[in-house]
Amino acid sequence: MRRLEPEDLVLVLGARPPSDVGAWLRDGLRDAVASGRLEAGAALPSSRSAAAGLGVARGTVAAAVDELVGEGVLESRPRSSVVVADLALRPRGTAPGPARPGVATERPASVGSPDPGLFPRAAWARAVRDAMRELLDAELGYPDPQGLLVLREALAGHLRTARAAPVEAEDVVIVSGVAQALALLGQVLAGGDPAGRVVVEDPASPGVVEQLRGAGLDVVPVPVDERGLRTDGLPDAAAAVVTPAHQFPLGVVLAPDRRRELVAWARDGDRLLLEDDYDAELRYDRQPVGALRGLAPERVALLGSVSKLLSPALRLGWVVAPPGVRDALVDAKRRADLGCSVPEQAAFARLIADGAYARHLRRARLTYQRRRGLLLDALARDAPHVPVEGVAAGLHLVVRLPDGDAEARAVSALRAAGVPAEPLSGTAARGDTRGVVVGAARVQGPAVPRVVEILRAAAVGAGVGV
Amino acid sequence: MRRLEPEDLVLVLGARPPSDVGAWLRDGLRDAVASGRLEAGAALPSSRSAAAGLGVARGTVAAAVDELVGEGVLESRPRSSVVVADLALRPRGTAPGPARPGVATERPASVGSPDPGLFPRAAWARAVRDAMRELLDAELGYPDPQGLLVLREALAGHLRTARAAPVEAEDVVIVSGVAQALALLGQVLAGGDPAGRVVVEDPASPGVVEQLRGAGLDVVPVPVDERGLRTDGLPDAAAAVVTPAHQFPLGVVLAPDRRRELVAWARDGDRLLLEDDYDAELRYDRQPVGALRGLAPERVALLGSVSKLLSPALRLGWVVAPPGVRDALVDAKRRADLGCSVPEQAAFARLIADGAYARHLRRARLTYQRRRGLLLDALARDAPHVPVEGVAAGLHLVVRLPDGDAEARAVSALRAAGVPAEPLSGTAARGDTRGVVVGAARVQGPAVPRVVEILRAAAVGAGVGV
Repeated sequence: MRRLEPEDLVLVLGARPPSDVGAWLRDGLRDAVASGRLEAGAALPSSRSAAAGLGVARGTVAAAVDELVGEGVLESRPRSSVVVADLALRPRGTAPGPARPGVATERPASVGSPDPGLFPRAAWARAVRDAMRELLDAELGYPDPQGLLVLREALAGHLRTARAAPVEAEDVVIVSGVAQALALLGQVLAGGDPAGRVVVEDPASPGVVEQLRGAGLDVVPVPVDERGLRTDGLPDAAAAVVTPAHQFPLGVVLAPDRRRELVAWARDGDRLLLEDDYDAELRYDRQPVGALRGLAPERVALLGSVSKLLSPALRLGWVVAPPGVRDALVDAKRRADLGCSVPEQAAFARLIADGAYARHLRRARLTYQRRRGLLLDALARDAPHVPVEGVAAGLHLVVRLPDGDAEARAVSALRAAGVPAEPLSGTAARGDTRGVVVGAARVQGPAVPRVVEILRAAAVGAGVGV
Repeated sequence: MRRLEPEDLVLVLGARPPSDVGAWLRDGLRDAVASGRLEAGAALPSSRSAAAGLGVARGTVAAAVDELVGEGVLESRPRSSVVVADLALRPRGTAPGPARPGVATERPASVGSPDPGLFPRAAWARAVRDAMRELLDAELGYPDPQGLLVLREALAGHLRTARAAPVEAEDVVIVSGVAQALALLGQVLAGGDPAGRVVVEDPASPGVVEQLRGAGLDVVPVPVDERGLRTDGLPDAAAAVVTPAHQFPLGVVLAPDRRRELVAWARDGDRLLLEDDYDAELRYDRQPVGALRGLAPERVALLGSVSKLLSPALRLGWVVAPPGVRDALVDAKRRADLGCSVPEQAAFARLIADGAYARHLRRARLTYQRRRGLLLDALARDAPHVPVEGVAAGLHLVVRLPDGDAEARAVSALRAAGVPAEPLSGTAARGDTRGVVVGAARVQGPAVPRVVEILRAAAVGAGVGV
């Protein structure tokens, strides 16, 4: 059993804040355990030496530890040692957090869900508190349907840097996530010419396709290969929805010549490109490819949200749109729900402005990169024939399996192990696209060999690489 | 100049919390000044005696006072006295809250907007903080499109008591306000029979009518008289949208026999009643009339939100619906935006569960009752011929003016004085309905004689009661 040193705690907790030391300690430890930065089974230092190392009162350490033992995040062992609990394979919906009545039946996580254990709970609570102090009375009335200016400004600054695209606050419309963005843009496009036809990638997110069809659009699938969407022979349509930075689900990046051809297609026919930038900021091996919007701001609406980067529970997203589209979108947003929550918008603006969002993104990127690396290393060692596709990015892996039975078995075995999984065939218009999309965000510790074994067995069953 | 005693501060601030005493003091004083509970011009006790009376350190009092002086909520006067600032006629958008960049162009408040100065900022921040501690990791994934169970349970309990209607958590759908509820229910009804016809009250909220038309519905206005919607000769339609507890804008209550006739109409034709309960909990002279839903839970969808009761900036509302409507509504909500923000839902659930919501409602009711009383007293004294309609409830007043010019002049004079106002003709389908709808939530202090004079002049100009 590894015994942690006080320095290990300093490393994961960062600088001691001037106030709320107990909450900082408790939330920091909980996050560190949930994210795997403190490894399962490791023993904490004594409360006396932890207190000395962290520069806090011993009682504060003891109180935080007691609370986390009560939550099951830490475990009390004989001879007064306290060890980090193993949360990796714990049934979802049971930890961490104290038990209480009224907990909903668990909803299965999607393959694109981030690890909720990484959500910066304390930073979010602080951001809401600060927003509550700073919002003007006049801002607590009905919202601006385009979004709170202070958030549009903060996001514009962030996206200019992070996505290398021209973005001004006046171009940004705040929405309740990409699903709403697509529903509203679908309404805008439904009146377009040729009436309501939109190109989608094949394969693509079933949710995206459903959202577009729900808006009354006619969806035209166009194949994706290892260089992204095929741009030879694009059909006539009012728009195309694309994932250039990290194709969903195949994980490829749209090649530079195809980007140019796609933009030319849009310019030729007065068409709109919807750039679904769902996880572009989670690239692990290099800076993400710049947004398509950089090539043609007047033709591209850039869609993003906090769903992969912070949490899909927040329902905050954005569209950076050309002026004509922007005005129609703001009108659709107003008709849909008048606008997004002001306190949440203000809190997100603070998180961006004070650097906590950038810190969270760095930390999330490092965590997912490490987990992905460990999983791919284990696959390379123990199941070298399993074909993993896509660049080093995002929250999911794709493994092709030519056999429909192997696909179904792999999906149900992964789900039974608590790992989100979807059949690749469910994302494709063509019948020969089969395999499994694995939600890898929380796969760590003992879950790694389980996932490796399931994928190995599926590949063997399908005769892949044998 | 009145000098406040330490006891006055204890009275408005309530019990000292175990922690965050500085924030409690600062936010409590700001709320008390903004709401008028501490009257403009009154002098605070010395920081020494305030500290002693409140049981806090003198430095804590001094720091809170300094900050509020900086915000303009308190004012420093010669000879070291600090007095309560007069916020009543301050231009909206400038106080309270420290100045900062990125403040949006001010949006005019609607006639139904509550006083944002009453919003319990500190309680909301605490509720979000507690929610952040208590939410399970599994609850930080994609939301349940029907709404967080813990909020649906809390709301069901609240509505059963407050609205005397049968409500179970499974009947409740959480939405982003009544506007979204109408947009989504409009989609559900657009497929109904007779196809997409819906009865609305005449006059009615222009926003409600716009929302229904936006969903593609054919709107059929039916007159309202002093006993509410006229139920003799209701036309054939798939549904009716009604405001039985407090008709908008006329302020009348739907009579018991008409409630029964309306329910019979709904039952006869398999029709749905949408009960827009927008401000029913703001009744000042008695308990509000029980919800129509109590008469026919299988025919009535009860719509409400926090917009009039807490703040329209939060975008939280609910529909209590019969099972078939509920399922279609949940499906429409999922297609629209997947569901509402989980942290906000959890925070609102906490606010209800720990009693802070009930305390806020009591305080808001008392404040608005007092302001309404002072305004009506002044009208009775100085402009007895101005005909004010409606029961003692809600956030607005209606004054009929038979003359279109008088209507327009009154609306622009009120708006110029910073008081929200709408022409009554804008709410009506019939051309002879004229007058002014006055947003009375923030009318107090020097604004009272201004409003009285504007309404007096308008009534004289229109020849009313002369």
